[in-house]
Amino acid sequence: MKVDLNCDMGESFGLYQMGNDEEMMKYISSANIACGFHAGDPHVMRQTVLLAKEYDVAIGAHPGFPDLIGFGRRHLNCTPAEVKDYVIYQMGALNGFARNYGLELQHCKPHGALFMMAMSDEKLARAILEGIASFSDNMIVFALNNSAVAHEGEKMGLPIAKELYADREHTKDGSIILTRTGPSIQSYEEMADRVVNMVKDKKVITPDGEEAGVDVHTVCIHGDTNGAPELIKQIRYRLEEADIKIEPVRNIITV
Amino acid sequence: MKVDLNCDMGESFGLYQMGNDEEMMKYISSANIACGFHAGDPHVMRQTVLLAKEYDVAIGAHPGFPDLIGFGRRHLNCTPAEVKDYVIYQMGALNGFARNYGLELQHCKPHGALFMMAMSDEKLARAILEGIASFSDNMIVFALNNSAVAHEGEKMGLPIAKELYADREHTKDGSIILTRTGPSIQSYEEMADRVVNMVKDKKVITPDGEEAGVDVHTVCIHGDTNGAPELIKQIRYRLEEADIKIEPVRNIITV
Amino acid sequence: MKVDLNCDMGESFGLYQMGNDEEMMKYISSANIACGFHAGDPHVMRQTVLLAKEYDVAIGAHPGFPDLIGFGRRHLNCTPAEVKDYVIYQMGALNGFARNYGLELQHCKPHGALFMMAMSDEKLARAILEGIASFSDNMIVFALNNSAVAHEGEKMGLPIAKELYADREHTKDGSIILTRTGPSIQSYEEMADRVVNMVKDKKVITPDGEEAGVDVHTVCIHGDTNGAPELIKQIRYRLEEADIKIEPVRNIITV
Amino acid sequence: MKVDLNCDMGESFGLYQMGNDEEMMKYISSANIACGFHAGDPHVMRQTVLLAKEYDVAIGAHPGFPDLIGFGRRHLNCTPAEVKDYVIYQMGALNGFARNYGLELQHCKPHGALFMMAMSDEKLARAILEGIASFSDNMIVFALNNSAVAHEGEKMGLPIAKELYADREHTKDGSIILTRTGPSIQSYEEMADRVVNMVKDKKVITPDGEEAGVDVHTVCIHGDTNGAPELIKQIRYRLEEADIKIEPVRNIITV
Repeated sequence: MKVDLNCDMGESFGLYQMGNDEEMMKYISSANIACGFHAGDPHVMRQTVLLAKEYDVAIGAHPGFPDLIGFGRRHLNCTPAEVKDYVIYQMGALNGFARNYGLELQHCKPHGALFMMAMSDEKLARAILEGIASFSDNMIVFALNNSAVAHEGEKMGLPIAKELYADREHTKDGSIILTRTGPSIQSYEEMADRVVNMVKDKKVITPDGEEAGVDVHTVCIHGDTNGAPELIKQIRYRLEEADIKIEPVRNIITV
Repeated sequence: MKVDLNCDMGESFGLYQMGNDEEMMKYISSANIACGFHAGDPHVMRQTVLLAKEYDVAIGAHPGFPDLIGFGRRHLNCTPAEVKDYVIYQMGALNGFARNYGLELQHCKPHGALFMMAMSDEKLARAILEGIASFSDNMIVFALNNSAVAHEGEKMGLPIAKELYADREHTKDGSIILTRTGPSIQSYEEMADRVVNMVKDKKVITPDGEEAGVDVHTVCIHGDTNGAPELIKQIRYRLEEADIKIEPVRNIITV
Repeated sequence: MKVDLNCDMGESFGLYQMGNDEEMMKYISSANIACGFHAGDPHVMRQTVLLAKEYDVAIGAHPGFPDLIGFGRRHLNCTPAEVKDYVIYQMGALNGFARNYGLELQHCKPHGALFMMAMSDEKLARAILEGIASFSDNMIVFALNNSAVAHEGEKMGLPIAKELYADREHTKDGSIILTRTGPSIQSYEEMADRVVNMVKDKKVITPDGEEAGVDVHTVCIHGDTNGAPELIKQIRYRLEEADIKIEPVRNIITV
Repeated sequence: MKVDLNCDMGESFGLYQMGNDEEMMKYISSANIACGFHAGDPHVMRQTVLLAKEYDVAIGAHPGFPDLIGFGRRHLNCTPAEVKDYVIYQMGALNGFARNYGLELQHCKPHGALFMMAMSDEKLARAILEGIASFSDNMIVFALNNSAVAHEGEKMGLPIAKELYADREHTKDGSIILTRTGPSIQSYEEMADRVVNMVKDKKVITPDGEEAGVDVHTVCIHGDTNGAPELIKQIRYRLEEADIKIEPVRNIITV
């Protein structure tokens, strides 16, 4: 049994610091790297790719809307054609740094409002997927269970990694409940156990106590929340205790 | 006998139009495509790559400083490390669109102030060259005769295409005389003949009447000057009349 | 009988040109000047304020979303607090140049998607109005008949100028029908007559032929459409023929 | 005897935090507020103006180059006309928020590379001063002793506040020695005593031990260095102990 642990990375900008990249990189298996639109800059991208290489973490693009002031979290009604081009541009830019270190991009995970909008908007989902496929047709796409991105991506024959969140609540269909704070869980241990159960049982339990079957190829931990390094350490510990291997998603799903 | 004709392309941005891309693309053999820092945006980049493909024109990156308001023409004292990363980012972003259409980047030509600064600054020249080499070590670099970029690039073993300008005066060492207007030449025919002579004789004549031997692999025409499409038509006509073939630079220098 | 003629101005950026400011300024009485977010830059703002002064045209702020690549035409789901601050920032910035030439801002007219969203969204309308009022409580606000901006502005006691469009169709309640092209009117004369009738009769005729009573303090002409200078000349001519004076809106409504 | 204590403020951007504004504001008498070019955004500007009001701190504009990625610390060879317009734009924008809270701008202090370049470049100094004077001719300008800004400003009859730095070394003519780290002083107490002596004796001691007479209307403390809140507390304490009152600079020099 295997699972991938992913985290958003490289979201600093110029002199501005964000997240605990150095610390988080020790524990994850896949890094979603910001590409300069919602966060990140060329120097930060290089540093993040290099850090991932040092810790043998697989890298992926984390493209967002061109909205640095809003950190890519504000809905922007771009056309699908615009979104497709934003994705290609950002994947390409990150790939420049990957080439510099002899690495290949493993995956793509849209960021923030782009991610949330594409979960339910088929046209937008398709635009993102076309951008990804035009770049490489064996690029793995991270998507929530039952999302438009997952459905459209499967139709297009793209490799889709189903994702759950360590620090968010899920709905009955496996989507996440958008909030700026995590679930009301008392301890890191409890939170880590919850992740282990999600992975082992392939199901989530909603805040109302309902159960829903899901696929779980990768689990996301937010790096910018307090205690994130402590949480991910616990998650690793508990997963390993349960004989679940932590590996990059390319070792988990068939590309 | 062969020469390449190049032109800066894809410098529109959003609703803002610049240049005569559609018209110029019919006559050139290499397009230097802006990458979203000094000009250009993802959508414009796609359109420009597609246009180049339609007219079978080789494509290259035209990276500049992150200064849209100054169109990349203002000196910005970045560190060499910053410049290297700006070049990689922009080449990578453009390459995303090239991949989309099954194309490869032929060359890289820095833009504006970055180009001018690197002509004489060895550290900056080296930073740019390292960025280019890290992306691909057979990427052709456009450089003025006797410039720091040419010297350092040759030391590094990179393929260097020597460039002259159809619409600028040159100094005795083959560099250009920076001005916002072209030379005082009376007619397109006369200007075209001047280009033919530069290519055939491998020398430039300075405003003072001095002659200097130069290499000429590629000739640049500015697309945003009045009469540019008329000028390039004349240049093509006169070159062909003189049995000089117009071909992308990758067919001219050994990569 | 009086009416104001307004036009969006100062939408060039850096080397990028947009619109026919120099030509349009001769015929309008109020200029809506872009403030650097969706278009415009500090130098363009200065030039536009100076041009308005030369032609004795009243000036107003034309604030938009921070989205240069989309020209402020894409919906961006900012919070009302963000929008309020964007309006204050942009009005203040323009006011810097007004002070330089001893001028005062007459009015504020939100741009593009911000304008359209605020027409129906009361919270957004209120945020914009609070921003305007915080800057000056006798700043005139341009608003469509029956829009949320008009209703909320009147409740707040702000001076509201009701606006119609010379080159767009209107709905039964006086709003405009959003399109990137104007109405299907055959000639400038016919289009100018239509404006004269709107002003004289205080009513619009919808594409379905229905009539609706409206207030008309100011009429907008888009400066970036082909033939805009010809159209506005005709409008002025016909208005003057009909004994309707063209004056800045501060001479028309009580502030 | 009186002196002003100033600090750069409002340099956060979107989700990115910088500095200890809340803590520093308790101890200073003048705040230099970033205006959205090198740092700051409309929301941050509002918060910073409000914070200054709460602590009864005088506010001033802190305009910089349009270079967020470089935090305005990279030389950019703008024309004097461009710089003048950048200063007016930024002062105006900040003034929008000042008006919202019934405040007036007390002063202007250019930021980073703009500040450093203008110290020795008379044309640039004059452009900045003209921008400031066009906004208001009783706006106080912060300048280093013997700088081009001080000299030109005095010629133009503008009120100039001479500034020293608590946490930087000075040259013999009162300029500062540019470094990213402060002087090698062992303790906060010692550093605070150094400030008291500068103010009392109106002289600085260079790293070589030379003394130079200077004017000291305002002393700058960098808010983003470690221990800044501790240092400023010590400085206040020692100044008050020495019977030197800390007041906004408008109470110190004649406007």
